[in-house]
Amino acid sequence: MKYIFLFSIAIYFTNGISAQSTDSIFIKKIYTEALTNSGCYENLRYLCKNIGPRLSGSENAEKAINFTHELIEKTGVTKAYYQPLTVPHWVRGDKETAVISFIDEVDFENLRKDDSKEALVKSKRKSKKFNICALGGSIGTPEGGMAAKIIEIHRFSELDSIGRNGIEGKIVFYNSPMDATKINTFEAYGPAVQFRSKGAINAAKYGAVAVVVRSVTTAIDDYPHTGAMRYVDTIPKIPACAISTKDAEWLSINLKSNPNSELQIQLFCKTLPDVESANVIGEIKGSTYSNKYIIVGGHLDSWDLAEGAHDDGAGVMQSIEAIRILKNLGYKPKHSLRCVMFMNEENGLRGGEQYAKEAKEKGEIHVAAIETDAGGFAPRGFASEGNVENKQQLKSWTKLFEPYNLHSFTGNGGGADIYKLKEQGSALYELEPESQRYFDVHHSALDVFENVNKRELELGAASLAALIYLLDQNSK
Amino acid sequence: MKYIFLFSIAIYFTNGISAQSTDSIFIKKIYTEALTNSGCYENLRYLCKNIGPRLSGSENAEKAINFTHELIEKTGVTKAYYQPLTVPHWVRGDKETAVISFIDEVDFENLRKDDSKEALVKSKRKSKKFNICALGGSIGTPEGGMAAKIIEIHRFSELDSIGRNGIEGKIVFYNSPMDATKINTFEAYGPAVQFRSKGAINAAKYGAVAVVVRSVTTAIDDYPHTGAMRYVDTIPKIPACAISTKDAEWLSINLKSNPNSELQIQLFCKTLPDVESANVIGEIKGSTYSNKYIIVGGHLDSWDLAEGAHDDGAGVMQSIEAIRILKNLGYKPKHSLRCVMFMNEENGLRGGEQYAKEAKEKGEIHVAAIETDAGGFAPRGFASEGNVENKQQLKSWTKLFEPYNLHSFTGNGGGADIYKLKEQGSALYELEPESQRYFDVHHSALDVFENVNKRELELGAASLAALIYLLDQNSK
Repeated sequence: MKYIFLFSIAIYFTNGISAQSTDSIFIKKIYTEALTNSGCYENLRYLCKNIGPRLSGSENAEKAINFTHELIEKTGVTKAYYQPLTVPHWVRGDKETAVISFIDEVDFENLRKDDSKEALVKSKRKSKKFNICALGGSIGTPEGGMAAKIIEIHRFSELDSIGRNGIEGKIVFYNSPMDATKINTFEAYGPAVQFRSKGAINAAKYGAVAVVVRSVTTAIDDYPHTGAMRYVDTIPKIPACAISTKDAEWLSINLKSNPNSELQIQLFCKTLPDVESANVIGEIKGSTYSNKYIIVGGHLDSWDLAEGAHDDGAGVMQSIEAIRILKNLGYKPKHSLRCVMFMNEENGLRGGEQYAKEAKEKGEIHVAAIETDAGGFAPRGFASEGNVENKQQLKSWTKLFEPYNLHSFTGNGGGADIYKLKEQGSALYELEPESQRYFDVHHSALDVFENVNKRELELGAASLAALIYLLDQNSK
Repeated sequence: MKYIFLFSIAIYFTNGISAQSTDSIFIKKIYTEALTNSGCYENLRYLCKNIGPRLSGSENAEKAINFTHELIEKTGVTKAYYQPLTVPHWVRGDKETAVISFIDEVDFENLRKDDSKEALVKSKRKSKKFNICALGGSIGTPEGGMAAKIIEIHRFSELDSIGRNGIEGKIVFYNSPMDATKINTFEAYGPAVQFRSKGAINAAKYGAVAVVVRSVTTAIDDYPHTGAMRYVDTIPKIPACAISTKDAEWLSINLKSNPNSELQIQLFCKTLPDVESANVIGEIKGSTYSNKYIIVGGHLDSWDLAEGAHDDGAGVMQSIEAIRILKNLGYKPKHSLRCVMFMNEENGLRGGEQYAKEAKEKGEIHVAAIETDAGGFAPRGFASEGNVENKQQLKSWTKLFEPYNLHSFTGNGGGADIYKLKEQGSALYELEPESQRYFDVHHSALDVFENVNKRELELGAASLAALIYLLDQNSK
């Protein structure tokens, strides 16, 4: 018994080591290919500089569809095609304006001599312009803008305790910073972003006329960060915008001395009728399980304030590059592989929903879905959603990824675009890049090509290719 | 026996867990303090923007000495002082120029009709300006510059095989890129940087009149990267400069078609007499082992092409911040702690040598020396030099660092400034930040404050404070 036991351990370890060795050799090839022969950085440059912002429904989104179709086709996939869908079409219009005006208390002292109302208004009123941007989906302000007093709110429960009397007719200013003590900045995103997404609904319940939300970023700077916001049919729709963190800090201090400050805002945004659009898909037919799919993807659309370089141009180019690497190394996958460029992640998720809907209708089995939508920074690992076996399997590959500085394999997560595949039994994976710089640029004018590093982008692409390879080799 | 055995394991684990728990609580405080209460990013801004480049011997280096003395004093150390030394004083002078001129072969065909020598020279000669910079320590060119044919070299052995006949009177162009397949870019630095440091010596042996070295960077761009080069007394001194990687690639292609191209270079640099300078030291007296030291440091001087933001303004500010954090948390160290701002790391190492010399003379015992000089990027771990126990001890703290995304604890390394302390028995440690972006900026005009991320800088400072704490708690 002891002998047999030891013998079986020996076999196990020999096979284990040999498989790991074959795997580690192939993975080394993947990283070398990515770091020496990749065009993904230059492709991203083209997407950013020659196409640019590509919000759903825009002409640029259409250009991005055509460009990425061309790119994925060039990798030599079995077929490249479009998956039609309709998307919402929100447009920002002219640049937003925001001006605060207030009676500076200091001046009260100096101007006591002349207390005529006219002199008071003329002499003591001060004003300051803010850097704001409309939130995606917001209605515009009435023509000529709107002005109201401001109430600062740090958590939703404050709205309930203040009640309608204190809120009605005012602009609600949500000022809840991201928690700087979270090491992974994504952990601080959820608690802060709720004011952006649900702030207008919750403020309008109490009669607020508009909301101004502190930008969801870890940086203190002058850039407002946009992002999706929601309305519900039962509650009045009110305009919603984001204010830069520097201006938010200034506003908060100002309101302490000047609680009667008045904020004048103008938003020119509106929602137009839905537009025909598409996901872009490249597919390599599997040799053994051709009816089973492993997919990798990012999203094509981006916010309109910059170039969507990290969010998610990087993810799209990494996904295409992962497929190119495997093709270029002559890898013949057992499962069918798909590279999916999802449309409309930012303000609707229609691409992800359409993909999942059709997969279900066609009875396609998705073994694994991988998303890359957390920036093109140096990869640190993968998060996952799945059963215990999926989680254990991912963790068992730790040693294979460690030489490439990937160490994080226990986090929970799957991307927004692939989330609907979970209910169809697919395991979900999400590339985890270094998170420190992500929210500096996220949804702001700073999300430009220059903030992406070539090697970091390539390392992410290689990590995706390595995960696809391991999933393909070890799944049934 | 079995019972006793289990019991002792239980004690071991209980103590282990309790110590780790106390440690992990304190380390959490360190990171929270760094991420919420640090001035190190703003201090770095001042060093970069209000002082700027600070090569040894320059006025700015003097200003940096005074500024950091003030900063470390403000943390509330027991004493802050200067450690005098003399430093070399090399100056760049005016901006360097480099122009290549060549007879374009294509033109030969078109100009056959008029084969007078004058027409040939006038019509077919083309030229292109290059982005170059003198290497630190280089002599200048003769007044009016110098011109010579070029020979491209990829490894030193080529010089030997080509020999004096092929090299004499020529400019040697070293074109050996950093190996892109190394995941840690520092592993690719050594093999590439030897051409910068020893290239002039090795080329002058065979009669070369100057050297042009491909910039040591992983990026392909227009920025030349400087850095120290050496001469020896027995071999003629020839001018040495670096060329941007884009120009290096262009030059290499050009030389294939136009091997007789002539390069005209002008360097205005020179070495002036040595200058009085200093290290800056802040010291906290230890409560138990006051004659034993744990030190942390970076270097004050920086190359003259930019602001020395990552190299090594970041390291200096992180070192000061590590001390500030410990002071601010009320930590009473058992060992004496020193924050050392070394002068002259870049072109002489006189600061490190002076520090080690005085430590030896005074019989100071250095338990541990920590350097941070690999950029202010997100920390990934620590490298070390020391005995087996030191290495094991560092590795035993892995679990304490993992929540802060530090995973690398097995690498060998200690910084250049602290290296001389090794022979006095000190264990050496070096902060290992993410390395992908470092050589993009290193020693070039790109090493500016804007390329440093606030949180990444602070996480590095916290990691240093945590290591100091653990070393202090666990060393005798």
